[in-house]
Amino acid sequence: MSARVGIIMGSKSDLNVMQDAADICQEFGVEFEMTVVSAHRTPERMFTYAKKAAQKGLKVIIAGAGGAAHLPGMVASITTLPVIGVPVKSSNSIDGWDSILSILQMPNGIPVATVALNAAKNAGLLAVQILATADDSLAQKIQAYKEDLKKKVEESAEEMEK
Amino acid sequence: MSARVGIIMGSKSDLNVMQDAADICQEFGVEFEMTVVSAHRTPERMFTYAKKAAQKGLKVIIAGAGGAAHLPGMVASITTLPVIGVPVKSSNSIDGWDSILSILQMPNGIPVATVALNAAKNAGLLAVQILATADDSLAQKIQAYKEDLKKKVEESAEEMEK
Amino acid sequence: MSARVGIIMGSKSDLNVMQDAADICQEFGVEFEMTVVSAHRTPERMFTYAKKAAQKGLKVIIAGAGGAAHLPGMVASITTLPVIGVPVKSSNSIDGWDSILSILQMPNGIPVATVALNAAKNAGLLAVQILATADDSLAQKIQAYKEDLKKKVEESAEEMEK
Amino acid sequence: MSARVGIIMGSKSDLNVMQDAADICQEFGVEFEMTVVSAHRTPERMFTYAKKAAQKGLKVIIAGAGGAAHLPGMVASITTLPVIGVPVKSSNSIDGWDSILSILQMPNGIPVATVALNAAKNAGLLAVQILATADDSLAQKIQAYKEDLKKKVEESAEEMEK
Amino acid sequence: MSARVGIIMGSKSDLNVMQDAADICQEFGVEFEMTVVSAHRTPERMFTYAKKAAQKGLKVIIAGAGGAAHLPGMVASITTLPVIGVPVKSSNSIDGWDSILSILQMPNGIPVATVALNAAKNAGLLAVQILATADDSLAQKIQAYKEDLKKKVEESAEEMEK
Amino acid sequence: MSARVGIIMGSKSDLNVMQDAADICQEFGVEFEMTVVSAHRTPERMFTYAKKAAQKGLKVIIAGAGGAAHLPGMVASITTLPVIGVPVKSSNSIDGWDSILSILQMPNGIPVATVALNAAKNAGLLAVQILATADDSLAQKIQAYKEDLKKKVEESAEEMEK
Amino acid sequence: MSARVGIIMGSKSDLNVMQDAADICQEFGVEFEMTVVSAHRTPERMFTYAKKAAQKGLKVIIAGAGGAAHLPGMVASITTLPVIGVPVKSSNSIDGWDSILSILQMPNGIPVATVALNAAKNAGLLAVQILATADDSLAQKIQAYKEDLKKKVEESAEEMEK
Amino acid sequence: MSARVGIIMGSKSDLNVMQDAADICQEFGVEFEMTVVSAHRTPERMFTYAKKAAQKGLKVIIAGAGGAAHLPGMVASITTLPVIGVPVKSSNSIDGWDSILSILQMPNGIPVATVALNAAKNAGLLAVQILATADDSLAQKIQAYKEDLKKKVEESAEEMEK
Repeated sequence: MSARVGIIMGSKSDLNVMQDAADICQEFGVEFEMTVVSAHRTPERMFTYAKKAAQKGLKVIIAGAGGAAHLPGMVASITTLPVIGVPVKSSNSIDGWDSILSILQMPNGIPVATVALNAAKNAGLLAVQILATADDSLAQKIQAYKEDLKKKVEESAEEMEK
Repeated sequence: MSARVGIIMGSKSDLNVMQDAADICQEFGVEFEMTVVSAHRTPERMFTYAKKAAQKGLKVIIAGAGGAAHLPGMVASITTLPVIGVPVKSSNSIDGWDSILSILQMPNGIPVATVALNAAKNAGLLAVQILATADDSLAQKIQAYKEDLKKKVEESAEEMEK
Repeated sequence: MSARVGIIMGSKSDLNVMQDAADICQEFGVEFEMTVVSAHRTPERMFTYAKKAAQKGLKVIIAGAGGAAHLPGMVASITTLPVIGVPVKSSNSIDGWDSILSILQMPNGIPVATVALNAAKNAGLLAVQILATADDSLAQKIQAYKEDLKKKVEESAEEMEK
Repeated sequence: MSARVGIIMGSKSDLNVMQDAADICQEFGVEFEMTVVSAHRTPERMFTYAKKAAQKGLKVIIAGAGGAAHLPGMVASITTLPVIGVPVKSSNSIDGWDSILSILQMPNGIPVATVALNAAKNAGLLAVQILATADDSLAQKIQAYKEDLKKKVEESAEEMEK
Repeated sequence: MSARVGIIMGSKSDLNVMQDAADICQEFGVEFEMTVVSAHRTPERMFTYAKKAAQKGLKVIIAGAGGAAHLPGMVASITTLPVIGVPVKSSNSIDGWDSILSILQMPNGIPVATVALNAAKNAGLLAVQILATADDSLAQKIQAYKEDLKKKVEESAEEMEK
Repeated sequence: MSARVGIIMGSKSDLNVMQDAADICQEFGVEFEMTVVSAHRTPERMFTYAKKAAQKGLKVIIAGAGGAAHLPGMVASITTLPVIGVPVKSSNSIDGWDSILSILQMPNGIPVATVALNAAKNAGLLAVQILATADDSLAQKIQAYKEDLKKKVEESAEEMEK
Repeated sequence: MSARVGIIMGSKSDLNVMQDAADICQEFGVEFEMTVVSAHRTPERMFTYAKKAAQKGLKVIIAGAGGAAHLPGMVASITTLPVIGVPVKSSNSIDGWDSILSILQMPNGIPVATVALNAAKNAGLLAVQILATADDSLAQKIQAYKEDLKKKVEESAEEMEK
Repeated sequence: MSARVGIIMGSKSDLNVMQDAADICQEFGVEFEMTVVSAHRTPERMFTYAKKAAQKGLKVIIAGAGGAAHLPGMVASITTLPVIGVPVKSSNSIDGWDSILSILQMPNGIPVATVALNAAKNAGLLAVQILATADDSLAQKIQAYKEDLKKKVEESAEEMEK
């Protein structure tokens, strides 16, 4: 089956953050593809990627970038798919504020679903939730995932209460 | 047909911002419901709302709140549906920073799809995009909407170039 | 005697900060209990904890959390007890600003007594001060504690003046 | 009966904010006194006020100030009573950040229970909650107050749902 | 003679700021063109504009945008011309911080010459300075412009000293 | 001769920063005294120190503190001497912002001469400049000091130009 | 008698803020001069002003500027006199942060005595305090001024306590 | 051939950042000179440098500085050449915000072309782009440089896609 989630990042140095999104897709059995697409160094590649995303079967795009992070917003401007933006605290970022504001503060008409700084795991989960709106088995897996989170907290709690 | 998008806000004073989300749903022919749910003043109501959201047919929840804005994140902690958070620059907000950070910076495991400050319109569009991942007619409407945005810019451009 | 102060935290990784609150309770001879309660991963546990806090004899709750820190505010929304919030500079926090603003900027009607970033020691002291409003022996211990702080400064001063 | 809550502010221009704390005391039937005490213009008056607060029967002090807001922290350094700090967004404040940080970021040993910017109402409620730890009738009033908040939200909700 | 400076902006509502750049070009006798190009609503138009800018004779591009301001950076990624970015404090901007950081914090390889918030006048002057590096008559006009600034200050000074 | 400059700090842990002020006094032959005075842990000691400063011959006070840094402002409220405040980036400070704003943003009537974060050296130089307004030999030493700074830059320049 | 305090500002539009410094000088009977000196538009005038300041009898310079406020620091780099910097929240300033940081964060070797945003009154008082280190009659006036501040607070207090 | 680009920095400790600008000039075959010029420690040297820059053949000046970074703006106030400012995150900088705002927020009339924090490489590229407005061979080299950036991304992409 073809990829349903496209994971892209502005630089291969973002991989250590963005891998979490891929891991979540894997864990939930959601097909994904992952590559490097730079808004600033490969604008045409970005255009083509965004333009073809829907027709090749992608349902959601996860885009991570740092600094003046234009990749998520620009991809969102071209595709009709929902785009999830991951602000990356890269080495050229000012404590992450530039990454966050460049991704979050999109103008009316072109939303980007922004997650927390470096939160590629949550980007993956949000992609799964989006797919789950039309896929009950995924919804059940999310429910199970949440149960698991709960159990881990309860175990921590028990341990601490001793 | 039952509502597919639930729009909630922490206070009725948020309505002047959140109405934009409702208008987008209307414009795209997406059934929605809208109400006030306060995380801090009606925690049980919030629990019940989030708990029942999926089973009553909602596919996406849009939650707007200002200040220490806990509504989107708390709803996300209870439901498996994707939750879109709208940071509202309410009167008790510090330039919107508190609203943004309270909604955006969710921990791993519980994403909130955050949009720009006061950007309820984009929240509405994101909800439509999410539904469109399983609804081709909606996808086409988004395409048309984007064409329309483009035309308006081109008209502004022509006017200015004169 | 049953616990008078409940110390809770969003994640066991917050313990290295929150232990200071427990140590203060110990030092002042105030009975306390300590556990993990996550607003986002165990919302029902949080509800139950907050709901039962007063009836099981707690007088004050100290809640620590980082990032989009909803635990203190949500517990405050459910209980009538005073809630002291400790913003934790956790690894997923933006220099602590998100933790601070998510805890501090509560709407009218639902206060959280916020202390400085990572200041669990001060949260413990504040809890003792609150109990001391109806417990003279505690008030005297606080007076002695302050005398001790003073003496340490005076010793530093003497040393430096040499 | 003598005042249980002392409300002080750095300047009479803070009264339009601080009045909310007095109103809450009134509403809950808690005796209070209110005056101007400036840390910077009347340091000795501040000393005397803080020094005598406990012995004249005060149980809690609410202190509001703006800019480099030293009043809450300095009062806390002198008294053993719990001190609630209200950061006031006065005309000489930088969007309230200076007021917040000057009050919140107290060193270990000297807590100030900080509430949101301009949130004198919450300061009043917190004072009531503190007194309620030893006064069941106050605790019941807080419960009723919360019920009332809930009802108002439910009414807003009903209205909006129409 | 064809335009040497291209002035573009993300929305016609930016014109009240960007007009200053045009006025400076006019004042210095530098041919310019001005139009609306939105990175997010007309990405293809932006591509074409940036792609053709050099070959149609433009020497410098001035791009103004607000919020998540991607226009200057994206144009810079496509053209080899120097791009001057004007952060606009538009209505959807958070005090201008988003506009500034989105334009300023470009990654290595793709500079944008950023000027102060709303400083379209300085963008115009910078464009003139750039052209003046190969046009002595322009350099002389800049010198005269600076003399004029000086004179106005001296007049203010004389007036105040009286 | 008795000390002309009093150097105080809120905690002995500030000494590694504040020593620079002492070193400058030494270098310029200005008598100084140095000790620990905590606004929050030794408020009475602070009062006494500030109260007696002028009569024991001090001409300038340098006060360093971190976090909610009240020492410089409180000393300034009590003495008529000029007070120089050094914001210290202590471990409990939020990137230094709290220290800076707590010292800088004093209300009308009570100035504190604030220097840069951790800039105790500049505090020392400012104290010398203040004394030099009535001491020509000091003014000459400052001139020589500036010459020396200049020479060091010129040497760096020569080295780099090679 | 010749002026002892020089008050300069980057633009005549800063006068509405800077007048307060002049008023304080007047009130304390300190001779002053006031003029416009722009670091950026009249760099040579600034040089000359700073160079001659000491020899024409000035003892202290007060310099106010907004935005990228270089005037106080540049004057300090040229003169040996103490320079007091007033960050002005001018129309081209980002909430005053740029003015504050440009003036406050001077490198080692060149201090500027920075006062609060727009606090020209405090700049005037600081200048008087500096002169008072060698002028007992001024010191007494400062004492009286402080008494007056105290009385006004006490009057406010009495009024409020009624 | 004489230098076309002048690279200056406030301190030799800025060299580890500013070297990148020199390397870019070298790579593009653009003659440059590099030296230390401190606005605050060598104001006259700065004046002379800026005054003579144009007549000795420089076309662009790149100036880097940290903290209260006045060098770029002051040089821009004196010369008619375009000045590129590099905010350096030096040890005495507050996360770089002071450097950025001191350089970026220049008043109308005196632009500084500001690049990202520590982005001396981009300053070099911007200088080359400015020269290329009148030098086609340089324009071609920039085109080739951009092609190279693109290829490197494409290689990263291929590698990741495997």
